[in-house]
Amino acid sequence: MSSADPGPARGESVRPAPGPAGPGTGRLEVFALDGIPEIRSGDDLATLVGDALERTDGALPLRGDDVLVVTQKIVSKAEGAFVDLSAVQPRLEAVAYASRWGRDARQVEVVLRQAVRVVRMDNGVVIVETRHGFILANGGVDASNVGAGSGDTVLLLPDDPDASARRIREAVEQRFGVAPGVVISDSLGRPWRFGITDLAIGVAGFRPNEDLRGTADADGRVMSATIRAVADEIASAAELVLGKTARRPAALVRGASPPPGEGSIAADVLMPAELDLFR
Amino acid sequence: MSSADPGPARGESVRPAPGPAGPGTGRLEVFALDGIPEIRSGDDLATLVGDALERTDGALPLRGDDVLVVTQKIVSKAEGAFVDLSAVQPRLEAVAYASRWGRDARQVEVVLRQAVRVVRMDNGVVIVETRHGFILANGGVDASNVGAGSGDTVLLLPDDPDASARRIREAVEQRFGVAPGVVISDSLGRPWRFGITDLAIGVAGFRPNEDLRGTADADGRVMSATIRAVADEIASAAELVLGKTARRPAALVRGASPPPGEGSIAADVLMPAELDLFR
Repeated sequence: MSSADPGPARGESVRPAPGPAGPGTGRLEVFALDGIPEIRSGDDLATLVGDALERTDGALPLRGDDVLVVTQKIVSKAEGAFVDLSAVQPRLEAVAYASRWGRDARQVEVVLRQAVRVVRMDNGVVIVETRHGFILANGGVDASNVGAGSGDTVLLLPDDPDASARRIREAVEQRFGVAPGVVISDSLGRPWRFGITDLAIGVAGFRPNEDLRGTADADGRVMSATIRAVADEIASAAELVLGKTARRPAALVRGASPPPGEGSIAADVLMPAELDLFR
Repeated sequence: MSSADPGPARGESVRPAPGPAGPGTGRLEVFALDGIPEIRSGDDLATLVGDALERTDGALPLRGDDVLVVTQKIVSKAEGAFVDLSAVQPRLEAVAYASRWGRDARQVEVVLRQAVRVVRMDNGVVIVETRHGFILANGGVDASNVGAGSGDTVLLLPDDPDASARRIREAVEQRFGVAPGVVISDSLGRPWRFGITDLAIGVAGFRPNEDLRGTADADGRVMSATIRAVADEIASAAELVLGKTARRPAALVRGASPPPGEGSIAADVLMPAELDLFR
């Protein structure tokens, strides 16, 4: 059947431009930002990230098509989204579930308080839909690396991650005169596969999804259902240099060609209930 | 509550090593491979990818911790996984569903033939579990960019994507004397979010998931449920330079620190039914 294949396409032998990463060069670079200290409630995160940009070899000069990826954990910490478990009274359902699965009832209670809907509650896992519209194991409530020095503190999601991203973007623009894209990333599990990947929970300065529907593919056919989740892939690329234990909570991604425009994870990426086959 | 936070951690002010990307440097680089021609059934894909590695600025010398990402489409084409729709007789169910949702009944038939289980069949979408164990919209059956010059051909998944990855890895090692990791990537939708991301459907030369359970986090607590889906994040990072229309079907990812060892997507990443809350 391959006899009908066209030959090699025109342009295939053109080399990518040598030199640094950038749109169209076929090169992507990710820099883990260096020297971000342990973040405390009330810290000026944008200033600390800006300092880290200056400290990181190769990160400056910033470009408008760079994307700064900041992990949820330090955004939540700077915004003071801590909950002191010693003040939490778990409901009976939380006590029963925690006892059955060997969990902390106060943590289960905090998770249930994040929920506008419980999606699944089984195998010791509580998957909820948060008021942001995210569907998350444990409602995004974070008990590891909270850095409060005790087992009695957990960390919630930022109040409005898109707004958090916009604030960081504006502060970075004020300081450097260039406004990169910003992604707030978080580690999410998924159905059907083991493992977590980092995805975008907030975005500023570019459209998180690139909608190619109606554009022609390389055969000239119209692609009917192709929406590239660019912000999510940027978050995943950043995680590869950040890891989980390396104390590197932010990265700069260069060369990803983020779709120009403005957008929001809440408005552009989260699927409305009526289209969701996995409620 | 932040008063209990420890100060900046030791080592935070250490700069990453300047120079090229590599494990521990906090740098990731992705190179789109240049000059891979339109692939036909029976092509020696490993040789064409090797030629492209030689053609791509900065890709050589290869390193054992590099990961070569090859998109499913060219693997399937080289393996001849085409189906001629003109020879397909759709079952009545496929005819009815196609008619209701404006689809090609023969394509729906091919999708149903990939299924060991239909997961969801609604909104014009058919989500099936394939015999590999993947849960995929349209069973991974691909009608865009098939490159056969007509609308009557579709492309199936590789027969055994882990084996495809191993074959490419062995051929690359023979030619270059270095065995990088290999990922076969495909674009997958997901519940709850619009957009597709590239994930790994086959892997060779490293463990696709890094299991951090039982290791201590930066606070010294034991992380109980953290498995990093490294192969999937590598596939997503590669997609950022490959895109959908650019005729770039392979990339080299440097600096991702793929977990050493051997592994398989089918055995290590796909979730067995009894643990899956979203059957």
